Amino acid sequence: MAIDFTLAPEHEEIRRRVRAFVQDVIVPAKTEGLTREEYLRTIFGLRERAKAEGLWLPHMPVEVGGMGLGHVALAMVQSEAAKTRLGPWVLNCQAPDEGNMHTLLHWATEEQKEKYLRPLLEGRAMSCFAMTEPEVAGSDPTLIRTTAVQDGDEWVVNGHKWFISNARRASFAILIARTEPDVPEGQRGATTAFLVDIPSPGWTDVREVETMHGSTGHSEIVIEDLRLPESRILGGRGNGHRLGQYRLGPARLAHCMRWISQAETALDMMVDRALNRYSHGSLLADKQGVQWLIADSAMELYQCKLMVLHAASKIDKGDDFRTEVSMAKHFVANALNRIVDRAIQVHGALGYSTDTPLASMFQHARWARFADGADEIHQMRIAERTIAAYRDTGSTRAATGGLPL
Amino acid sequence: MAIDFTLAPEHEEIRRRVRAFVQDVIVPAKTEGLTREEYLRTIFGLRERAKAEGLWLPHMPVEVGGMGLGHVALAMVQSEAAKTRLGPWVLNCQAPDEGNMHTLLHWATEEQKEKYLRPLLEGRAMSCFAMTEPEVAGSDPTLIRTTAVQDGDEWVVNGHKWFISNARRASFAILIARTEPDVPEGQRGATTAFLVDIPSPGWTDVREVETMHGSTGHSEIVIEDLRLPESRILGGRGNGHRLGQYRLGPARLAHCMRWISQAETALDMMVDRALNRYSHGSLLADKQGVQWLIADSAMELYQCKLMVLHAASKIDKGDDFRTEVSMAKHFVANALNRIVDRAIQVHGALGYSTDTPLASMFQHARWARFADGADEIHQMRIAERTIAAYRDTGSTRAATGGLPL
Amino acid sequence: MAIDFTLAPEHEEIRRRVRAFVQDVIVPAKTEGLTREEYLRTIFGLRERAKAEGLWLPHMPVEVGGMGLGHVALAMVQSEAAKTRLGPWVLNCQAPDEGNMHTLLHWATEEQKEKYLRPLLEGRAMSCFAMTEPEVAGSDPTLIRTTAVQDGDEWVVNGHKWFISNARRASFAILIARTEPDVPEGQRGATTAFLVDIPSPGWTDVREVETMHGSTGHSEIVIEDLRLPESRILGGRGNGHRLGQYRLGPARLAHCMRWISQAETALDMMVDRALNRYSHGSLLADKQGVQWLIADSAMELYQCKLMVLHAASKIDKGDDFRTEVSMAKHFVANALNRIVDRAIQVHGALGYSTDTPLASMFQHARWARFADGADEIHQMRIAERTIAAYRDTGSTRAATGGLPL
Amino acid sequence: MAIDFTLAPEHEEIRRRVRAFVQDVIVPAKTEGLTREEYLRTIFGLRERAKAEGLWLPHMPVEVGGMGLGHVALAMVQSEAAKTRLGPWVLNCQAPDEGNMHTLLHWATEEQKEKYLRPLLEGRAMSCFAMTEPEVAGSDPTLIRTTAVQDGDEWVVNGHKWFISNARRASFAILIARTEPDVPEGQRGATTAFLVDIPSPGWTDVREVETMHGSTGHSEIVIEDLRLPESRILGGRGNGHRLGQYRLGPARLAHCMRWISQAETALDMMVDRALNRYSHGSLLADKQGVQWLIADSAMELYQCKLMVLHAASKIDKGDDFRTEVSMAKHFVANALNRIVDRAIQVHGALGYSTDTPLASMFQHARWARFADGADEIHQMRIAERTIAAYRDTGSTRAATGGLPL
Repeated sequence: MAIDFTLAPEHEEIRRRVRAFVQDVIVPAKTEGLTREEYLRTIFGLRERAKAEGLWLPHMPVEVGGMGLGHVALAMVQSEAAKTRLGPWVLNCQAPDEGNMHTLLHWATEEQKEKYLRPLLEGRAMSCFAMTEPEVAGSDPTLIRTTAVQDGDEWVVNGHKWFISNARRASFAILIARTEPDVPEGQRGATTAFLVDIPSPGWTDVREVETMHGSTGHSEIVIEDLRLPESRILGGRGNGHRLGQYRLGPARLAHCMRWISQAETALDMMVDRALNRYSHGSLLADKQGVQWLIADSAMELYQCKLMVLHAASKIDKGDDFRTEVSMAKHFVANALNRIVDRAIQVHGALGYSTDTPLASMFQHARWARFADGADEIHQMRIAERTIAAYRDTGSTRAATGGLPL
Repeated sequence: MAIDFTLAPEHEEIRRRVRAFVQDVIVPAKTEGLTREEYLRTIFGLRERAKAEGLWLPHMPVEVGGMGLGHVALAMVQSEAAKTRLGPWVLNCQAPDEGNMHTLLHWATEEQKEKYLRPLLEGRAMSCFAMTEPEVAGSDPTLIRTTAVQDGDEWVVNGHKWFISNARRASFAILIARTEPDVPEGQRGATTAFLVDIPSPGWTDVREVETMHGSTGHSEIVIEDLRLPESRILGGRGNGHRLGQYRLGPARLAHCMRWISQAETALDMMVDRALNRYSHGSLLADKQGVQWLIADSAMELYQCKLMVLHAASKIDKGDDFRTEVSMAKHFVANALNRIVDRAIQVHGALGYSTDTPLASMFQHARWARFADGADEIHQMRIAERTIAAYRDTGSTRAATGGLPL
Repeated sequence: MAIDFTLAPEHEEIRRRVRAFVQDVIVPAKTEGLTREEYLRTIFGLRERAKAEGLWLPHMPVEVGGMGLGHVALAMVQSEAAKTRLGPWVLNCQAPDEGNMHTLLHWATEEQKEKYLRPLLEGRAMSCFAMTEPEVAGSDPTLIRTTAVQDGDEWVVNGHKWFISNARRASFAILIARTEPDVPEGQRGATTAFLVDIPSPGWTDVREVETMHGSTGHSEIVIEDLRLPESRILGGRGNGHRLGQYRLGPARLAHCMRWISQAETALDMMVDRALNRYSHGSLLADKQGVQWLIADSAMELYQCKLMVLHAASKIDKGDDFRTEVSMAKHFVANALNRIVDRAIQVHGALGYSTDTPLASMFQHARWARFADGADEIHQMRIAERTIAAYRDTGSTRAATGGLPL
Repeated sequence: MAIDFTLAPEHEEIRRRVRAFVQDVIVPAKTEGLTREEYLRTIFGLRERAKAEGLWLPHMPVEVGGMGLGHVALAMVQSEAAKTRLGPWVLNCQAPDEGNMHTLLHWATEEQKEKYLRPLLEGRAMSCFAMTEPEVAGSDPTLIRTTAVQDGDEWVVNGHKWFISNARRASFAILIARTEPDVPEGQRGATTAFLVDIPSPGWTDVREVETMHGSTGHSEIVIEDLRLPESRILGGRGNGHRLGQYRLGPARLAHCMRWISQAETALDMMVDRALNRYSHGSLLADKQGVQWLIADSAMELYQCKLMVLHAASKIDKGDDFRTEVSMAKHFVANALNRIVDRAIQVHGALGYSTDTPLASMFQHARWARFADGADEIHQMRIAERTIAAYRDTGSTRAATGGLPL
């Protein structure tokens, strides 16, 4: 036990196997120009191969068929898988199913696990997570307006959700609704999580919200008099917020891994362009200003990696990881935006065209500053914990990683 | 004559008339859901009304049917017209025709004016400007590879252009090609402008380049053995670069006017949202950080306006306006990006959706940092002129506006 | 009347005269190595010459012996005077006397003018302004704790002030104290201004506060049972805040003029260094990154000048100038810090040494972000006025300069 | 062996001992108001106690009387020692002696070690490092102008150095001079290191350069016909640059440790102030903008710590650490400046006064951006290595820490 930045050999081995599988099996698979049915068949074929090679459910414990990895090792696997868009799907660790599996494993009753978790684990079903609402700030869950009211032994839900990713492919949702109207704003304990079958009477998928990067499966849902039996409560009454928080730590790191992968691609492209583009008397790579763009990007990407490794290590140790995950999530999301932006600028008009993937990456990257907590919510949390650390101990040290330094 | 930031009364009067025309005539015109033919008929109908009211060709002198305005007044008219997308088209001052009319008026022979300028002035034709090439930095025109070689009394052109806006609607192009192979890189005088009819044998419009904001008429052109008579030279041999520069000053300011209009819309939306969104105990408008976003945006927009007014005033006075226009173009483009980005952040996920115009504005705004000179080219020019001012006069003052201060 | 960025000829003439006087008369005057007495004699000698040439009290109306300039013209004179440290003293327009003269002219009774204003106008006395307190935020005058309590026909003052510039040379202070204990926090009307002779029993100048740029006359004052007759109230009971605000508009612009002058010096030095320093294969002036530092600085300095000109013009017109002055003050102060910082960086270790004036300028510049309102107070005010403009008119336009654009 | 961010128990133990020694022994020692002689006697007394407790020469191997620590452990010890100004002096690991001991241990002959290294190890002497010159960019050692010319079996040195820290207390200098006039600019191998006794005929300490933070022992040296025997060459002819580079890795990290300590102090003060200052209706700690300042500072300090730990770990492993050390040095220096600046702003005028240590920290912090390589030199190196990594391997990954991610 001592400061070490290398992977344990067994994890390095797993990483190498995932990389090889991604490069040798997933990447060569043809997915362009297929019908939806052929496409699904291809994925399911790949999934069988992944299962057979033991590259399945990297985020789950061995007992339920997963790879039993810690979060550091998981981060590496996620990163390798994310090198291709299909990767997480083939390994069955794609968002939001990944977070939902975590949640169910921890909070569900045996019966709920059998009905909802098992199909996810086996790759037979997909799911969604329905918390965000258009009328109130998603960053402040104490404002949730969707209500669930007890009526006999049923709960009647009414409300309005949006940006519910994956809703159209999901066979069920984890829904957060207010069940305790008397809990005042700003206090925990007002909401409860429910399991909702899709389709269900009263659950209407109004549209897929169009975004800056197209229509990619974020649904708007209207809920009217949806009736749920008591047995669909997940994790107990009043635990909606705790349950939502619980799933976010690892899910945010998984996002970070994918974003780091994107940022690395952008930096590689930036350097490649700089080495091949000549203007006003020299290669771009020889110009001081362009070098600054490259140096800043390399430094930020390096910081992203250190932060994610450290946050994952904290989760593995069972330490309180919330500040580290907030800092990683906030910084990586913003660094990604800056690095892709610089890569576009170095490419000139070509970067603005769709002839390179940069334009699409730019449009997707903007979402990172909202996903799983907008910038402002993480800045607030980081500040609050820094202030609390100082108030409790007379030093901010606990809020800057709790490192030996 | 003394420091004054108000419009001359006669210009204020014109501004009011344009505003009224835009609001009362153009905005109410139905353009959604029309066939292309109906759409064109609508525009031409509106153009007739604009002509009848003397709101036609605001950028042209009275002698050729224009409004005979200076650049300050023109900036105001452009700004008002740009409040609606159709505005510049109806007043016939849309890019790139606007710049091309300037260019032809200044450089064309009488015969060329008759054939190419007159239809533009009368609103019967459109045009494009073909300079940028995919293989070389657009910011360094001394690198242009498209060649025109004399063959008898004809010139034979070969080359490759892209991001040629409006090419598919144009009946001719102003094309920049290298005619003087012996002029070394980095020196002026190597290129010549030509007038090319569209279509012409050898001019192939390969595709419209897809960009971050869709496919909006930037063509890629392959030129193979296109033959042009000597009479198609515009502005004399070796003057391609000078001619290109000449058109850019006013054209860049016209861009700035449109961007300012966009930025103002974004700032209005940001404030509106801040006044209506509640989170974590207060309205966004009452939070210090959101106030910083608003204050920075207001300040930057204010600076944009001052810069554009001053640059326009320099053009009107016949002073050297290049540094001021470079600073305005560079700053306004970047301020627009920042302000729209902040507006999106204040809107949260809604800002990322296409439910507001912000997402589209964000994708368009990114182009502003390339249009008519990438950031880096303007920064270089500003620095060079600052250095030159100091070297020539012992003070940088001439490069910071030449103001009395 | 129309957009114009040039000085009226008569003001241009005055500017030329001030510049000549500064260069030909003030700069050559020897002030180094003098005793305090010789030093004062020199200044008073120069003041006589200034008076004789009509270059005296540029900020005052003709009726009281001033030059009767508007604020635009005054800005130019201040700028020229500030080229040398002695300039404002010789022309008798130095802070804080300048603001105090304004205040007295506007608010004082005839008797008060005779006793306090006249000696300032004649250059026979100096003054200070005592508002800031160590215990409470200077940016929030509703928190002022110094109290004045009526006792018969006298007021008894107790309190604690600091950063009172010029207190040791002053023969009187304008003091702000709370007289209305019942006015709730956050509301105006709680404080009153008083005229305090220095020395006075109960007024103790404890020390000069040491700062980052040395000990330059910011005093800490303890006030204990200082007794003042009713006749020393300035501007009426409960008007302390209004009076304080009144003096700040022009005073802040005068600061801006001096800062612009400093920033211009720093930019000149930056360019000079870049033209003379060679490193890693080229002159600094030829490196893209250094060019970015120069270009950004030139652009920001240009913006500073436009903003100050415009704000001065608003004051001259009698328009509400508060937003413009806040934006100018905030931006110029920060631009100064950035430009001096860049100049230091371009100078390398030399810039950090005191061999050039840059180190001292850097240490002084930091104060600009606090003087006459910290950054945060101006950002708050700008945001509040932008929000108010939108609420009142549906557009933020009035908060971005109210320009024709 | 696996990702781990905790100290080895034996290092944790050492860290605790150093911390206790600093707090219990060094901090209580009175040093204020002593004569120079008393002051030195105090230090030497403390040094004896440190030696007795085995807290001596933490950066040296056991064989020469040091603590035999790796760089990670050393970083912790440096950090603890730097909590008080005297700490590094008492443990005998202060700059520039620390780097010079490294250099001598690695490069010196046995005879040189006996004469120059041993007194340093024993704490009987001090030293300096003379490379930087006023006439040429310190960041580009190929420009060094100080020459050493062979004359019989002696070398005759002429030149001009400055910013030579500690020169007045040193009994010798390691001097870098050009010995190979034919090596072209930009190439290595032109310079040689020499050991120079102080005083020596021809070595004149002209002055201590005044800087932004006072006169703290950076000398300017004129060297005229200084004669040195062949035996004073250190590390072989032509190795001046390699030798200079060799010492910088660990020395830069030691700087980083001290800066991190400063930044932590500034952040603690910022939070303390925010918790105790009330303005405009709330505590500063409750305002969103101030929270952003705190959150950004916490995040940057966290990144500093991760970077330094990782760079130290790379040195310990014998890996190429240059990119990581450059990134750490560049980032920590700049983060320190930003964090101290924010702390000052949160303190208002108090932060600008010398009543808190922040003003002095601010003035010192500015030097960090020049010390051991200006920002620009590190940015250049980072970019060059990122470009080289891509060119060599098709990926920039090796330049972003070579981490498993």
